[in-house]
Amino acid sequence: MIVALAGGVGAAKFLQGLVRAIDPAEITVIVNTGDDITLYGLHISPDLDSVTYTLADANDSDRGWGLAHETFRCLEHLARYPVPSWFQLGDGDLATHLFRTSRLAEGARLSEVTAEIAEAWGVGARILPMTDDKVTTRVVIEEAGTGRGMDLHFQEYFVERQAQDPVREINYEGVEVADPAPGVIDAIESADGIILCPSNPVASIGPILAIDGIREALQQFSNKVVAISPLIRDAPVKGPADRMMPAAGLEVSAAGIADAYRDFIHTLVIDFADESKVPEIEALEVEAAPAQTLMRGVPQAKALAKTVLRLLEP
Amino acid sequence: MIVALAGGVGAAKFLQGLVRAIDPAEITVIVNTGDDITLYGLHISPDLDSVTYTLADANDSDRGWGLAHETFRCLEHLARYPVPSWFQLGDGDLATHLFRTSRLAEGARLSEVTAEIAEAWGVGARILPMTDDKVTTRVVIEEAGTGRGMDLHFQEYFVERQAQDPVREINYEGVEVADPAPGVIDAIESADGIILCPSNPVASIGPILAIDGIREALQQFSNKVVAISPLIRDAPVKGPADRMMPAAGLEVSAAGIADAYRDFIHTLVIDFADESKVPEIEALEVEAAPAQTLMRGVPQAKALAKTVLRLLEP
Repeated sequence: MIVALAGGVGAAKFLQGLVRAIDPAEITVIVNTGDDITLYGLHISPDLDSVTYTLADANDSDRGWGLAHETFRCLEHLARYPVPSWFQLGDGDLATHLFRTSRLAEGARLSEVTAEIAEAWGVGARILPMTDDKVTTRVVIEEAGTGRGMDLHFQEYFVERQAQDPVREINYEGVEVADPAPGVIDAIESADGIILCPSNPVASIGPILAIDGIREALQQFSNKVVAISPLIRDAPVKGPADRMMPAAGLEVSAAGIADAYRDFIHTLVIDFADESKVPEIEALEVEAAPAQTLMRGVPQAKALAKTVLRLLEP
Repeated sequence: MIVALAGGVGAAKFLQGLVRAIDPAEITVIVNTGDDITLYGLHISPDLDSVTYTLADANDSDRGWGLAHETFRCLEHLARYPVPSWFQLGDGDLATHLFRTSRLAEGARLSEVTAEIAEAWGVGARILPMTDDKVTTRVVIEEAGTGRGMDLHFQEYFVERQAQDPVREINYEGVEVADPAPGVIDAIESADGIILCPSNPVASIGPILAIDGIREALQQFSNKVVAISPLIRDAPVKGPADRMMPAAGLEVSAAGIADAYRDFIHTLVIDFADESKVPEIEALEVEAAPAQTLMRGVPQAKALAKTVLRLLEP
């Protein structure tokens, strides 16, 4: 049994390789829900959806997010009303949000609904939200011009303002009282190997690690935990990791990633382009394993997955 | 100032003529909300939307309901999930449902949201829901085969089961504690004329009349109330009036319509085809005014509106 900790798009890309490298039934994915947002009354879980759609091969790989063959008619019409319309709401995607929202309103837990959605899409791997509780990644930015601090939802920072403001602070609101979703700790404890997908350590993996008991469980099993750096040559392949890591006290480099996870990983997979960082990483008592981490498509993702699985062999 | 009591499609068609016969700013439309339904957590108001879209000339006049150029991508995707998908949910229409639902969740009243939606569509007439409270038209049918009574939401009876079951009883659930929306009684009291649109007397006009104080207000001003029969040759132009009227103790004929409203209308506009019913209608102490009531398009609707307005002249 393999457990993967995942954010959205970068993680999903890797997972598309992992499900081709081993039987999907052997995989449990624990997904960040700190990006979840309620808009127009809809409970939107961007990372859960990215992972689900991608594992169903229904994602739009050109656009990089959302469903293939998506349309945006509802969003076009929403623009008529006095509501924010910066969130990219696809018509097909809306069905998922509506189903999730109405099931939650009926009293179902997010983990139950997530399983129902995965089943509806025929996903073979088990997908778990990190928690059934509400945890929200908030970003305190410095507003351009005024220099004033503004406390934003991650999606407002990332999508609405396109991650252009200097970041002062990141908080996982609600995390103090959140519990891991049913099955999360069990999955970690009984895993043969645990993979941290190449996701933003602050916005994607950070919230998962901050849930009570998860980091502690990983620390107990550090001999079976491998992480993949989301950075190549000190820059993220996608997303705002470079703009968020400094606010979390992390250097924007493969060494900064090793630093973020040093208490519970035995190996960090880095890109061949970052081989010069190996001494720095090993000084943190983390093994460094260079590989090709850039995934242009499924074949590269599968090759990377095989490399990681080899590192997890006893 | 002219007040119109309206259901959905038939009323909307007539109103498209009315707004061309007099200044829309002189018109207040009081709309049935007994058909409102919550689906997937969305507050859907079919009659309010039909009236709004039609007055904005944004309706699909071929299909007979919903928005022109509508797509149904979200509905197609909903079919993947274990939820009912019999309700025709358009992608553009969804924006209205989302806006309404989220405004109501914020604490806005339906009448406020209705005004906001009308404004967003540039509708010149004032549109009021009959009530801000929850009133639901329920239809007790006799299930084919078993003969068992089943208590259905009007939309389940009408859309899901296509009005094919024998109707035993109609109830307006919640009507006992409902109040007219702000402005409804004032509009009736200060109107120069009041028109009952050619709508189903049981499913569309019935719920409005059942709200505390509305029928009583109309009775006080019966000298200025005219109704238009939705029936031609004892059959509705559209919809299930013929299948619902008997359960309300009404004959399916222009005379049955006169009977339903006899306590507060002075004139019933009937189709030329129903001139033979005049004596029967006048026996109920209601004037009968034959006209062309079938509206194939806006010109006929405008002509009918002018006829009705003439009947309202002092």
